[in-house]
Amino acid sequence: MTKKFAHLRASMTPEAQAQSAAQAQAMLAEMPLQELRQARGLSQKMLADVLHVQHPAIAKMEKRADMYISTLRSHIEAMGGELEVVARFPDGAVRISNFADLRHA
Amino acid sequence: MTKKFAHLRASMTPEAQAQSAAQAQAMLAEMPLQELRQARGLSQKMLADVLHVQHPAIAKMEKRADMYISTLRSHIEAMGGELEVVARFPDGAVRISNFADLRHA
Repeated sequence: MTKKFAHLRASMTPEAQAQSAAQAQAMLAEMPLQELRQARGLSQKMLADVLHVQHPAIAKMEKRADMYISTLRSHIEAMGGELEVVARFPDGAVRISNFADLRHA
Repeated sequence: MTKKFAHLRASMTPEAQAQSAAQAQAMLAEMPLQELRQARGLSQKMLADVLHVQHPAIAKMEKRADMYISTLRSHIEAMGGELEVVARFPDGAVRISNFADLRHA
Protein backbone atom coordinates (compact mmCIF):
# COMPACT_ATOMS: atom_id res chain seq x y z
CA MET A 1 0.00 0.00 0.00
CA THR A 2 2.77 2.44 0.88
CA LYS A 3 4.50 3.82 -2.18
CA LYS A 4 7.43 6.18 -2.16
CA PHE A 5 7.20 9.13 -4.51
CA ALA A 6 10.46 8.17 -6.21
CA HIS A 7 9.00 4.76 -7.04
CA LEU A 8 5.79 6.29 -8.31
CA ARG A 9 7.73 8.61 -10.59
CA ALA A 10 10.05 5.88 -11.85
CA SER A 11 7.04 3.83 -12.93
CA MET A 12 5.72 6.70 -15.09
CA THR A 13 6.52 6.88 -18.81
CA PRO A 14 8.78 9.78 -19.90
CA GLU A 15 5.69 11.33 -21.53
CA ALA A 16 3.73 11.10 -18.29
CA GLN A 17 6.65 12.59 -16.37
CA ALA A 18 6.90 15.51 -18.79
CA GLN A 19 3.15 16.06 -18.62
CA SER A 20 3.27 15.97 -14.85
CA ALA A 21 6.06 18.56 -14.80
CA ALA A 22 4.17 20.80 -17.23
CA GLN A 23 1.12 20.47 -15.05
CA ALA A 24 3.00 21.50 -11.94
CA GLN A 25 4.21 24.63 -13.71
CA ALA A 26 1.00 25.57 -15.48
CA MET A 27 -0.62 28.63 -14.02
CA LEU A 28 -4.27 28.20 -13.22
CA ALA A 29 -6.53 31.19 -13.08
CA GLU A 30 -6.86 32.16 -9.42
CA MET A 31 -9.80 34.07 -7.99
CA PRO A 32 -12.10 34.31 -4.98
CA LEU A 33 -15.49 32.55 -4.98
CA GLN A 34 -17.39 35.74 -5.72
CA GLU A 35 -15.37 36.45 -8.85
CA LEU A 36 -15.68 32.82 -9.95
CA ARG A 37 -19.47 33.03 -9.64
CA GLN A 38 -19.49 36.20 -11.74
CA ALA A 39 -17.18 34.60 -14.32
CA ARG A 40 -19.68 31.72 -14.57
CA GLY A 41 -22.41 34.28 -15.27
CA LEU A 42 -24.34 33.45 -12.09
CA SER A 43 -26.04 35.77 -9.60
CA GLN A 44 -26.09 35.23 -5.83
CA LYS A 45 -29.84 34.74 -6.17
CA MET A 46 -29.42 31.90 -8.68
CA LEU A 47 -26.88 30.16 -6.46
CA ALA A 48 -29.12 30.62 -3.40
CA ASP A 49 -31.97 28.95 -5.30
CA VAL A 50 -29.84 25.94 -6.27
CA LEU A 51 -28.56 25.53 -2.72
CA HIS A 52 -31.96 26.14 -1.10
CA VAL A 53 -30.59 28.87 1.13
CA GLN A 54 -31.48 32.52 1.60
CA HIS A 55 -29.82 35.04 -0.68
CA PRO A 56 -27.71 36.70 2.11
CA ALA A 57 -26.21 33.31 2.99
CA ILE A 58 -24.38 33.31 -0.34
CA ALA A 59 -22.97 36.79 0.18
CA LYS A 60 -21.77 35.78 3.66
CA MET A 61 -20.26 32.55 2.40
CA GLU A 62 -18.32 34.30 -0.37
CA LYS A 63 -16.60 36.46 2.26
CA ARG A 64 -15.50 33.58 4.47
CA ALA A 65 -11.80 32.75 4.67
CA ASP A 66 -12.43 29.30 6.15
CA MET A 67 -15.23 26.74 5.89
CA TYR A 68 -15.94 23.01 5.90
CA ILE A 69 -14.83 21.21 2.77
CA SER A 70 -18.37 19.84 2.36
CA THR A 71 -19.75 23.40 2.33
CA LEU A 72 -17.26 24.49 -0.30
CA ARG A 73 -18.00 21.40 -2.37
CA SER A 74 -21.75 22.11 -2.39
CA HIS A 75 -21.04 25.69 -3.37
CA ILE A 76 -18.80 24.72 -6.29
CA GLU A 77 -21.14 21.98 -7.45
CA ALA A 78 -24.00 24.48 -7.44
CA MET A 79 -21.96 26.45 -9.98
CA GLY A 80 -21.61 23.33 -12.13
CA GLY A 81 -18.05 22.54 -11.12
CA GLU A 82 -16.17 19.89 -9.22
CA LEU A 83 -14.05 20.47 -6.13
CA GLU A 84 -10.50 19.17 -6.25
CA VAL A 85 -8.36 19.12 -3.13
CA VAL A 86 -4.69 18.83 -4.05
CA ALA A 87 -1.54 18.57 -1.96
CA ARG A 88 1.37 19.98 -3.96
CA PHE A 89 4.96 19.00 -3.15
CA PRO A 90 8.17 20.03 -4.91
CA ASP A 91 8.34 16.53 -6.44
CA GLY A 92 4.70 16.02 -7.38
CA ALA A 93 1.05 16.62 -6.61
CA VAL A 94 -1.54 14.32 -5.08
CA ARG A 95 -5.30 14.60 -5.09
CA ILE A 96 -6.67 13.96 -1.59
CA SER A 97 -9.41 11.36 -1.78
CA ASN A 98 -10.74 11.53 1.80
CA PHE A 99 -13.50 13.88 0.78
CA ALA A 100 -14.65 12.14 -2.38
CA ASP A 101 -17.69 10.65 -0.68
CA LEU A 102 -18.98 13.88 0.83
CA ARG A 103 -22.53 14.58 -0.12
CA HIS A 104 -24.08 18.03 -0.02
CA ALA A 105 -23.80 19.68 3.37
CA MET B 1 -13.36 42.61 -12.72
CA THR B 2 -15.82 40.08 -14.11
CA LYS B 3 -14.32 38.01 -16.88
CA LYS B 4 -16.18 35.41 -18.88
CA PHE B 5 -14.38 32.12 -19.36
CA ALA B 6 -14.65 32.41 -23.14
CA HIS B 7 -12.80 35.74 -22.98
CA LEU B 8 -10.17 34.34 -20.67
CA ARG B 9 -9.54 31.45 -23.04
CA ALA B 10 -9.47 33.67 -26.13
CA SER B 11 -6.74 35.78 -24.54
CA MET B 12 -4.49 32.72 -24.01
CA THR B 13 -1.80 31.77 -26.53
CA PRO B 14 -2.37 28.48 -28.42
CA GLU B 15 0.49 27.00 -26.38
CA ALA B 16 -1.16 28.03 -23.13
CA GLN B 17 -4.49 26.62 -24.31
CA ALA B 18 -2.88 23.30 -25.21
CA GLN B 19 -1.07 23.19 -21.88
CA SER B 20 -4.29 23.96 -20.07
CA ALA B 21 -6.10 21.15 -21.92
CA ALA B 22 -3.29 18.71 -21.14
CA GLN B 23 -3.46 19.73 -17.53
CA ALA B 24 -7.18 19.15 -17.36
CA GLN B 25 -6.70 15.64 -18.67
CA ALA B 26 -3.61 14.71 -16.71
CA MET B 27 -4.29 12.15 -14.02
CA LEU B 28 -2.92 13.09 -10.65
CA ALA B 29 -2.14 10.41 -8.14
CA GLU B 30 -5.12 10.16 -5.81
CA MET B 31 -4.95 8.85 -2.26
CA PRO B 32 -6.26 9.40 1.25
CA LEU B 33 -4.29 11.44 3.78
CA GLN B 34 -2.96 8.38 5.57
CA GLU B 35 -1.48 6.92 2.39
CA LEU B 36 -0.03 10.29 1.45
CA ARG B 37 1.71 10.53 4.82
CA GLN B 38 3.16 7.05 4.33
CA ALA B 39 4.25 7.92 0.77
CA ARG B 40 6.09 10.93 2.22
CA GLY B 41 7.87 8.58 4.63
CA LEU B 42 6.33 10.17 7.73
CA SER B 43 4.90 8.51 10.84
CA GLN B 44 1.82 9.72 12.73
CA LYS B 45 4.15 10.50 15.61
CA MET B 46 6.34 12.78 13.46
CA LEU B 47 3.30 14.63 12.17
CA ALA B 48 1.88 14.95 15.67
CA ASP B 49 5.15 16.53 16.81
CA VAL B 50 5.16 19.09 13.98
CA LEU B 51 1.52 20.02 14.65
CA HIS B 52 1.92 20.05 18.44
CA VAL B 53 -0.97 17.64 18.93
CA GLN B 54 -1.25 14.24 20.56
CA HIS B 55 -0.48 11.20 18.45
CA PRO B 56 -4.11 9.87 18.40
CA ALA B 57 -5.32 13.19 17.01
CA ILE B 58 -3.51 12.43 13.75
CA ALA B 59 -5.05 8.96 13.46
CA LYS B 60 -8.49 10.47 14.06
CA MET B 61 -7.92 13.25 11.57
CA GLU B 62 -6.81 10.85 8.84
CA LYS B 63 -10.15 9.05 9.11
CA ARG B 64 -12.31 12.15 8.82
CA ALA B 65 -14.36 12.64 5.68
CA ASP B 66 -14.90 16.34 6.34
CA MET B 67 -12.94 19.08 8.08
CA TYR B 68 -12.20 22.79 8.01
CA ILE B 69 -9.98 23.88 5.15
CA SER B 70 -7.61 25.50 7.67
CA THR B 71 -7.21 22.15 9.44
CA LEU B 72 -6.43 20.35 6.20
CA ARG B 73 -3.98 23.06 5.20
CA SER B 74 -2.05 22.74 8.49
CA HIS B 75 -1.95 18.99 8.03
CA ILE B 76 -0.60 19.19 4.47
CA GLU B 77 1.89 21.91 5.37
CA ALA B 78 3.16 19.74 8.21
CA MET B 79 4.00 17.15 5.55
CA GLY B 80 5.96 19.78 3.61
CA GLY B 81 3.27 20.37 1.00
CA GLU B 82 0.94 23.13 -0.10
CA LEU B 83 -2.84 22.91 -0.21
CA GLU B 84 -4.50 23.82 -3.47
CA VAL B 85 -8.28 24.21 -3.69
CA VAL B 86 -9.43 23.95 -7.28
CA ALA B 87 -12.85 24.27 -8.92
CA ARG B 88 -12.84 22.24 -12.13
CA PHE B 89 -15.34 22.97 -14.92
CA PRO B 90 -15.69 21.34 -18.33
CA ASP B 91 -14.14 24.47 -19.88
CA GLY B 92 -11.36 25.15 -17.40
CA ALA B 93 -10.12 25.07 -13.83
CA VAL B 94 -9.79 27.86 -11.30
CA ARG B 95 -7.81 27.98 -8.09
CA ILE B 96 -9.95 29.37 -5.27
CA SER B 97 -8.07 32.15 -3.54
CA ASN B 98 -10.40 32.78 -0.55
CA PHE B 99 -8.27 30.59 1.69
CA ALA B 100 -4.83 31.86 0.72
CA ASP B 101 -4.50 33.92 3.88
CA LEU B 102 -5.38 31.15 6.32
CA ARG B 103 -2.74 30.65 8.92
CA HIS B 104 -2.31 27.42 10.86
CA ALA B 105 -5.45 26.37 12.68
